[in-house]
Amino acid sequence: MTSEMPRRRSGGREARIALRAAAHLERVPFLTRTLAPATVLSEEGLAIIEANADRLLAEVGVAVRDAAALETFRAAGAEVDGDRVRFPDGLARRLVMENAPRTFVQHARNPERSVTIGDPHMVFAPNYGSPFVRDLDGGRRYGTIEDFRNFVKLTWQSPWLHHSGGTVCEPVDIPVNKRHLDMVYSHIRYSDKPFMGSVTAPERAQDSVELAKIAFGTDSLVGKTVMLSLVNANSPMVWDAAMIGAARVYAENDQGVLVTPFILSGAMGPVTIAGSCTQSLAEALAGMAFVQCIRPGAPVVLGSFASSLSMQTGAPTFGTPEPSLLLYVMAQLARRLGVPFRSGGNLCASKVADAQAAYESANTFSATVMAGVNFVLHSAGWLEGGLAIGYEKFILDEDQCGMAATFVKGVDLSPNGLAMDALLTNEPGTHFMGNAHTLQNFETAFYRSTTANNDSFEQWQEQGSLTAEQRANAVWKKRLAEYDGPGIDPGVDEALLDYIARRKASFPDSDA
Amino acid sequence: MTSEMPRRRSGGREARIALRAAAHLERVPFLTRTLAPATVLSEEGLAIIEANADRLLAEVGVAVRDAAALETFRAAGAEVDGDRVRFPDGLARRLVMENAPRTFVQHARNPERSVTIGDPHMVFAPNYGSPFVRDLDGGRRYGTIEDFRNFVKLTWQSPWLHHSGGTVCEPVDIPVNKRHLDMVYSHIRYSDKPFMGSVTAPERAQDSVELAKIAFGTDSLVGKTVMLSLVNANSPMVWDAAMIGAARVYAENDQGVLVTPFILSGAMGPVTIAGSCTQSLAEALAGMAFVQCIRPGAPVVLGSFASSLSMQTGAPTFGTPEPSLLLYVMAQLARRLGVPFRSGGNLCASKVADAQAAYESANTFSATVMAGVNFVLHSAGWLEGGLAIGYEKFILDEDQCGMAATFVKGVDLSPNGLAMDALLTNEPGTHFMGNAHTLQNFETAFYRSTTANNDSFEQWQEQGSLTAEQRANAVWKKRLAEYDGPGIDPGVDEALLDYIARRKASFPDSDA
Repeated sequence: MTSEMPRRRSGGREARIALRAAAHLERVPFLTRTLAPATVLSEEGLAIIEANADRLLAEVGVAVRDAAALETFRAAGAEVDGDRVRFPDGLARRLVMENAPRTFVQHARNPERSVTIGDPHMVFAPNYGSPFVRDLDGGRRYGTIEDFRNFVKLTWQSPWLHHSGGTVCEPVDIPVNKRHLDMVYSHIRYSDKPFMGSVTAPERAQDSVELAKIAFGTDSLVGKTVMLSLVNANSPMVWDAAMIGAARVYAENDQGVLVTPFILSGAMGPVTIAGSCTQSLAEALAGMAFVQCIRPGAPVVLGSFASSLSMQTGAPTFGTPEPSLLLYVMAQLARRLGVPFRSGGNLCASKVADAQAAYESANTFSATVMAGVNFVLHSAGWLEGGLAIGYEKFILDEDQCGMAATFVKGVDLSPNGLAMDALLTNEPGTHFMGNAHTLQNFETAFYRSTTANNDSFEQWQEQGSLTAEQRANAVWKKRLAEYDGPGIDPGVDEALLDYIARRKASFPDSDA
Repeated sequence: MTSEMPRRRSGGREARIALRAAAHLERVPFLTRTLAPATVLSEEGLAIIEANADRLLAEVGVAVRDAAALETFRAAGAEVDGDRVRFPDGLARRLVMENAPRTFVQHARNPERSVTIGDPHMVFAPNYGSPFVRDLDGGRRYGTIEDFRNFVKLTWQSPWLHHSGGTVCEPVDIPVNKRHLDMVYSHIRYSDKPFMGSVTAPERAQDSVELAKIAFGTDSLVGKTVMLSLVNANSPMVWDAAMIGAARVYAENDQGVLVTPFILSGAMGPVTIAGSCTQSLAEALAGMAFVQCIRPGAPVVLGSFASSLSMQTGAPTFGTPEPSLLLYVMAQLARRLGVPFRSGGNLCASKVADAQAAYESANTFSATVMAGVNFVLHSAGWLEGGLAIGYEKFILDEDQCGMAATFVKGVDLSPNGLAMDALLTNEPGTHFMGNAHTLQNFETAFYRSTTANNDSFEQWQEQGSLTAEQRANAVWKKRLAEYDGPGIDPGVDEALLDYIARRKASFPDSDA
């Protein structure tokens, strides 16, 4: 019956509908929630965890394996004993609350793609850090710089991903000491969405800063945040020299730092949710306090990456209830602290884009959306606990990001949304398909999935009984074939390549 | 590293851990939330929709195609004009609010499996109403009474499904006028969990009541609710004779009625969320008011089954953002009204248990869990928009029900949950795996998925690179092979079979 509808349309109406549909699909540079985040703990519960984190930082403290950072902490009033740093009386929390911004703008090369990070916004970035890549044709293999570029391109083309991310996969075909240059270059060259810099060593962070200066045509990035960086604690309660050194470079240059403890409960943290939250908060507070010591007001994001262990294999699990609850609690703690929050994504343990992958990813992602995570890394592509990024998984996850964009807009209570004209003029037993209200709204009323098959069983069978993974295989190939790119100023491109060539020439050839 | 843990355990500790693990897996007859339901509308927004539903019932009203029901409504003060029933001044809502119970107990044959329906509880029942059945070996085919029995058995065996459901699949091999007898019998005979009766005709409802009387050894069910019934409006705004007649039988006998409008927005209702909610509420209010007219205080549940249409195919879609938002709103409206709420489940449009099925199901189910749906039909097995129930899908969905059982318990803030002893005694950089707190809690700390594969890629590959669907195939076969059943008193069984034989003999042989 609904298949009749297009035939009834006049040319003028069709044109208007097409216009509305186009408007409906218009890209927004980031999401803005109208829905309040869902919560799982009362303020009293949050206060207990916060006080416990303060106590943990005061009594146990964190080990900081970097002499300069120890000096920074000492100067800020922390108690430094060997490499141990203790924060009396909630010092770390106060440093963050008094200095860190609630929101900040990360500028993109294309100003229309700049993002605001913090409430009530959500920014989706792709997978990060996988050494392996998977597609349905070639199976699983090590990632290459070509894969890296492909995912940068697919992300740039995506209407639902707002951010180009960072190490979307490891380009294993390039030596470790050089690949950060190719990665940052690829983000700048093949995308004009915001991106992330390297954190694997302070000098690689500095290279990222220098390349960003060239890309944005400036001598200083201070006052203009154009990069994020993913800085992980070495849980439990340790900050290593490489990460804290990278954090210093980004903080000095006023660039964003995602301070993220990485806790598998039972291994790098206590086996309970509240215990893992306490430790996550403590570790993040220490890292964020460091950033604020280096440059008060520098953009910083409270990150949380936590999961449970499989009791059968000792491997991390994803999409299970405990990490979801933990995510909700950490989002509440970040809000209480007044800083943006990073977590979540479409995380899974599955090796392929099957039902396991989707249940696990959707479980993590629904918590991400309902908790109102502000910066969502790993929004698309993640497989195998992060060991691999999948081309098909990327396409399927991206569709979920599109659904989130509709979901967080909430329920329209305008007269058109309430639809009383339609309801009061529609006779019982009469379908709404011919109703004027339906015709005015139909084309833009519902999110259109890019990957779901809603055909009849018979049609689906005639088309080859394809699974979602098989259909997604065609989608990414078609999209990559159509990539045309944002282009780049040839002078800027030359300067970037020149910087990279000089830096590469200065390194030894060994892969270390 | 975690694989080392078991070796360190002493015999005594191992025994204690086994005991804890067993306690952890102990079945509960239904879930009790500690988490507050998530909401998407303010009370002001809900009040607008509620007022609009009242207005719709007053001005347009519902068509009721049953003479006795028209008389019932007239006697209660409604305005009856032909088959149109209008409810002035919120009459339908008042009848519900003043009479319907907030919660009620549905008794099971085994008292330990009785369920409480209403806040703060959740009850999971399997798929309902599919003419087709699918498994990985045989593909898609019409359902049979053997399939029906299999799903009753699988549900009985499930630790995570609380309710045996109703028409888990259509036993197409039995004539339509007789199959309700075999279905009700199968629930009683092969399970001791609570179940649902037939609604396809008033006399089939009466048969269900008579069989239940035999099963529960009583001459009257009044005062003891032992059955639920799924009564659908014929949306928009029509109540048909068969459904309203069945509702009358159940109400007269004090049995539970799930009053459920079935709305595909844009076809059987307005194309917007708020408009569809208004209509759903109005239709449900009329049906629930009818039940309260027949027997004030009879158990009734506000049901909502709503989805969007695919603009490409005109088919219903599942797991998209609009139906999720609608579900949250309807849950809020039911709470405002003070009646239990039925909706949700693991709904999908996919033909197979692939990534599409799982994303869609998880999206619906996360809304179900977060919104705090009290009675969840279609919790396991649903495929193809309900046209098919899948054996593998059933197993995968059931695992999600298990995760929900853990999730709704929320975050443990007891001293053990807060884990400060562990945190304050654990040195930075030292893993928690040997910590006493970890060893005391590890075995019961995390939900254990029954379907997820958390092995390494290499192990998974060695085991045949199986997808979740393929692994689930082995699970349901093993479980069915192990089914031993709750047994039944031979005298009761004989009486049930005798009643069925007499009734069947009284029907014509034709399939009508």
